[in-house]
Amino acid sequence: MTHNDVPDLVPTNDPEPTSEVLSLLRERRSVRAFSGEPVPQEDLTQILLATRQAPTSINAEGLSLVVLRDRDRIQAVADIAGGQPQVAGAEVVVVFVVDFYRTDLAARKHQREQVVHRSAEGILVGAVDAGIALATFQTAAHSLGYATTAIGGVRNDPAALIELLGLPAHTFPVVASTLGVADRQKTPQVKPRVPLESYAMEERYDAQAVEHGAQVYDELLRDWWDAQGMTQMGTWSQDTSSMYSRYYFPTVAATMEAQGFRFLDGPEDAAPERPAAQD
Amino acid sequence: MTHNDVPDLVPTNDPEPTSEVLSLLRERRSVRAFSGEPVPQEDLTQILLATRQAPTSINAEGLSLVVLRDRDRIQAVADIAGGQPQVAGAEVVVVFVVDFYRTDLAARKHQREQVVHRSAEGILVGAVDAGIALATFQTAAHSLGYATTAIGGVRNDPAALIELLGLPAHTFPVVASTLGVADRQKTPQVKPRVPLESYAMEERYDAQAVEHGAQVYDELLRDWWDAQGMTQMGTWSQDTSSMYSRYYFPTVAATMEAQGFRFLDGPEDAAPERPAAQD
Repeated sequence: MTHNDVPDLVPTNDPEPTSEVLSLLRERRSVRAFSGEPVPQEDLTQILLATRQAPTSINAEGLSLVVLRDRDRIQAVADIAGGQPQVAGAEVVVVFVVDFYRTDLAARKHQREQVVHRSAEGILVGAVDAGIALATFQTAAHSLGYATTAIGGVRNDPAALIELLGLPAHTFPVVASTLGVADRQKTPQVKPRVPLESYAMEERYDAQAVEHGAQVYDELLRDWWDAQGMTQMGTWSQDTSSMYSRYYFPTVAATMEAQGFRFLDGPEDAAPERPAAQD
Repeated sequence: MTHNDVPDLVPTNDPEPTSEVLSLLRERRSVRAFSGEPVPQEDLTQILLATRQAPTSINAEGLSLVVLRDRDRIQAVADIAGGQPQVAGAEVVVVFVVDFYRTDLAARKHQREQVVHRSAEGILVGAVDAGIALATFQTAAHSLGYATTAIGGVRNDPAALIELLGLPAHTFPVVASTLGVADRQKTPQVKPRVPLESYAMEERYDAQAVEHGAQVYDELLRDWWDAQGMTQMGTWSQDTSSMYSRYYFPTVAATMEAQGFRFLDGPEDAAPERPAAQD
């Protein structure tokens, strides 16, 4: 399918973006086909320097990046992610690694025993910080004209990725991003989103707005797929519920555990009182 | 302390940013003092529309925002975060909510049983997507001249925040951000980071580079605190290890469990084989 003849944005009633940065963010899309044009090292360095300035919780710097340019190693990541051609075709793949190895060095320096990697809090911190860095990386890349896609598929076989990257204990490769020059013949339009009032709610969660928005979105996204010529795709609710009714990456907890992580609120033998579960 | 007379950036050997967006990202800092000037609704809407375009895993739209402008409710969030004046003084506080309530509507529509909220994978997805949205929100805000700080402190008492926001089952408030106009008299310089080669490694994790970078960073950050007049602060390794040797937010797992979340790889009664833990 070719999209050079269609506009980037599907018309909506939303106000137009009021600055260039806002336009860049509003026109963001996941690009899965690359032209094969190179990414010069100077540009990559610029993108990485911008990414590094992203905030980390308590300024712990609990995150590291592994930057892959080697074709064979990028292919290996594509295989780990379940054979994704969108990964194999990228010039660069960056893996975002929750890094409590670095912070453990800090603990050892002061004769302390690090426990953050054994806490539910630590696992959330690591994943949130990885997401913050990934978005910063992608915005920096887009500002230089490059294209990206977030790759959650690295969690399909995280143990294999840990082996490939040589990751030590107390680290976990939580997400990745591709980087390359878009193949403009295969670049989709910007994907529609749920209505703003069902996404960003005022003062309190509004379950009715969420329900209404979900209904509207099923139709919006269906129309969008059809406009891209992807008539085989399901609706949002079909495709999302198909995936989310399965344990589709079934070694995440086990691999994190093998890396030393735990999902706890305190020392394991403390057996804290827990509120009754609703589910 | 006043910093109007000092440059935003501490001089380094890193190459200068090559575009305006890269400059914006490189000059990012957490601002904890606001002037009290208003944030017009049009600007907030622009920032939220940009945030909404951030990617979500499998396009599940598994994230929602709750936007607080009410002074009393912002004060309540500040109290929940442990009495943070940087929260109480913000014009707007946005809470980023992992939202598997919306995706559960999709499952019910197709007579499926959602399990993603019971998986370690789902918890990582939710937290990563929240981080992606938070960084997008902050970049959008900064591009309009506003200041922000990420607030992990909402996890200090997540049950109280769930109550305040009226969050349903299968949702969790994972992080927040302040938004306001910076008090330029109290705005710090941009914080230094670990050396790039110890943050973004080529092809493989480099434990030696991480160790060397951590040593360098202890001195870099110490000098920076002194330059801000904050001589009472510790080094990076002191402050990080002090926090990370404690279970400092001790109700995260219990509250997630009460909301219906689990950190599993499969159905609870399946008792999967797990690799031996390294820790």
